[in-house]
Amino acid sequence: MRPRLALVPGEPAGIGPELCVRLAQRPREAELLAYADPDTLLAAAAALDLPLRLKPAGETSGPGELAVEPVPQQRPVRFGQADPANAGAVVAALERAAAACLAGDCHGLVTGPVHKASINQGGIAYTGTTELLARQAGVDVVMMLARPGLRVALATTHLPLRDVADAITREGLARCLRITDAALRRDFGIARPRIAVLGLNPHAGEDGHLGREEIDTLIPCLQALRAEGLDLEGPLPADTAFLPAKLAGFDAVLAMYHDQGLPVLKHGGFEQAVNITLGLPYPRVAVDHGTALDLAGSGRADPSSLFAAVDLCSLLAARRIPA
Amino acid sequence: MRPRLALVPGEPAGIGPELCVRLAQRPREAELLAYADPDTLLAAAAALDLPLRLKPAGETSGPGELAVEPVPQQRPVRFGQADPANAGAVVAALERAAAACLAGDCHGLVTGPVHKASINQGGIAYTGTTELLARQAGVDVVMMLARPGLRVALATTHLPLRDVADAITREGLARCLRITDAALRRDFGIARPRIAVLGLNPHAGEDGHLGREEIDTLIPCLQALRAEGLDLEGPLPADTAFLPAKLAGFDAVLAMYHDQGLPVLKHGGFEQAVNITLGLPYPRVAVDHGTALDLAGSGRADPSSLFAAVDLCSLLAARRIPA
Repeated sequence: MRPRLALVPGEPAGIGPELCVRLAQRPREAELLAYADPDTLLAAAAALDLPLRLKPAGETSGPGELAVEPVPQQRPVRFGQADPANAGAVVAALERAAAACLAGDCHGLVTGPVHKASINQGGIAYTGTTELLARQAGVDVVMMLARPGLRVALATTHLPLRDVADAITREGLARCLRITDAALRRDFGIARPRIAVLGLNPHAGEDGHLGREEIDTLIPCLQALRAEGLDLEGPLPADTAFLPAKLAGFDAVLAMYHDQGLPVLKHGGFEQAVNITLGLPYPRVAVDHGTALDLAGSGRADPSSLFAAVDLCSLLAARRIPA
Repeated sequence: MRPRLALVPGEPAGIGPELCVRLAQRPREAELLAYADPDTLLAAAAALDLPLRLKPAGETSGPGELAVEPVPQQRPVRFGQADPANAGAVVAALERAAAACLAGDCHGLVTGPVHKASINQGGIAYTGTTELLARQAGVDVVMMLARPGLRVALATTHLPLRDVADAITREGLARCLRITDAALRRDFGIARPRIAVLGLNPHAGEDGHLGREEIDTLIPCLQALRAEGLDLEGPLPADTAFLPAKLAGFDAVLAMYHDQGLPVLKHGGFEQAVNITLGLPYPRVAVDHGTALDLAGSGRADPSSLFAAVDLCSLLAARRIPA
């Protein structure tokens, strides 16, 4: 059985809809079911002068076609101009697509970029799609960014730098590592995942000379988890952990915070980078770029990240489907 | 006139001496004058089965030869075993070489790796060579790491992560950027340096949602410096600032802290990375690796970083010599 992926374009006025139109031109390993406003998808196809035949949910679609579960917008799209009046439709599309995954009607979720400020201006409290999905599912999650050759999970995500040190606790770190380990086994099919855990401080604290968190928090946490059977190395100095020869020995790196892990990941292959949510009852993969309002409708947006997201989500979803 | 570089091998029991022996085999653009224990250099040459003829300071040397200003050790070297009794000689070599640069007898300083713990065990308070050189010269300095294609200067260096946010002040940042700008002009010969300044917080604070330091400290500082004629872009989100297409427009990146800037730098070319001290009255370039006690005497240590340090220091020193 081919997996069925729920596809959410994200902000209608951004490049999400046209990337979905480009995606619809490709042959596919998985069935795609878009949760979107049909008129917006057709407008994006017209702007790019590409064919698009919309089909009802449940029907198989091929190149040039896309099955759609309609989520109507309040107002027609104007590419390049995010309209807070459509915030409800953007969030509803995410929630309905995720609900379909939770119900087992879809086997994975792929999401395009949303416009955080526009959703909040539309009167909906929203901090991020990852947080929304975690709350809806009632689980703890871990954000992982990946590109060919490198997977980086984050112990903390969108926090001011001055709050990072206090946010790293033994319990939180253990939860994060258990989720990451389980996802590498279940979703990525790695029998015995090896995870490199970065230190919080430069040189991983240099035996306490550059910070105590490695000694007080990280090392005891890693020791306890090794006793549970996790294969963890660290805490490692972040500046040398990413040397290609070192990385070769690991299935993933756990960075303690955003700017410790993501510059390397994006430097070496931004176009194909994707954002994976670990810990949900279903696989979810998102693009690793923004709405690019300035490019919307121009046809110049690079679809590589969405293509990579769909390809990876197909693979992860297929592993979850009982044979 | 060829520049004369002072060369300090660093920890005698590490790979520093044998890297200097390898360096001595090469033809050279600059005169080299080693500040070192002659017996240690000869022992390293013997261990690697390489020729080494030591010459008195002031004499020209060619491949297979090295001029030496003797700095005798307390005890004979045993490769692989750092001896705190030799801490005094390690520090004396650095201080005498730097004094020769300050006096104008040498035109630049190249240093190998030292063993911080061994020096402190030897009863000498020592936090780092960069700090020692700055204190001796009585100036403020900036640490810059460089490899082909990328230069990263650091606003803070070896600080616990929880202390970083408070260490970034308008005055400190301005001092750091002025030193970096001046060094890019004077030493690197860049007529109008363009510097990318990273934000402190993820997404450079996202308009204050992820931290206020960009608004309260960074942006006002950059505005004031632009009025002085510095060409600065930022504060930029660190995760996307290192995309190759973005980097192409800049002569250097200023990272706010160690693990924000150095993982990318080392990931993309650790072997040739070097550590440059900006702001001294003379150019100083160091290797970007440790003492590697486990490799010492084996001949397996990679000399690329020392070779790159000497090549770069030759270039920087030549620019300072009046025609």
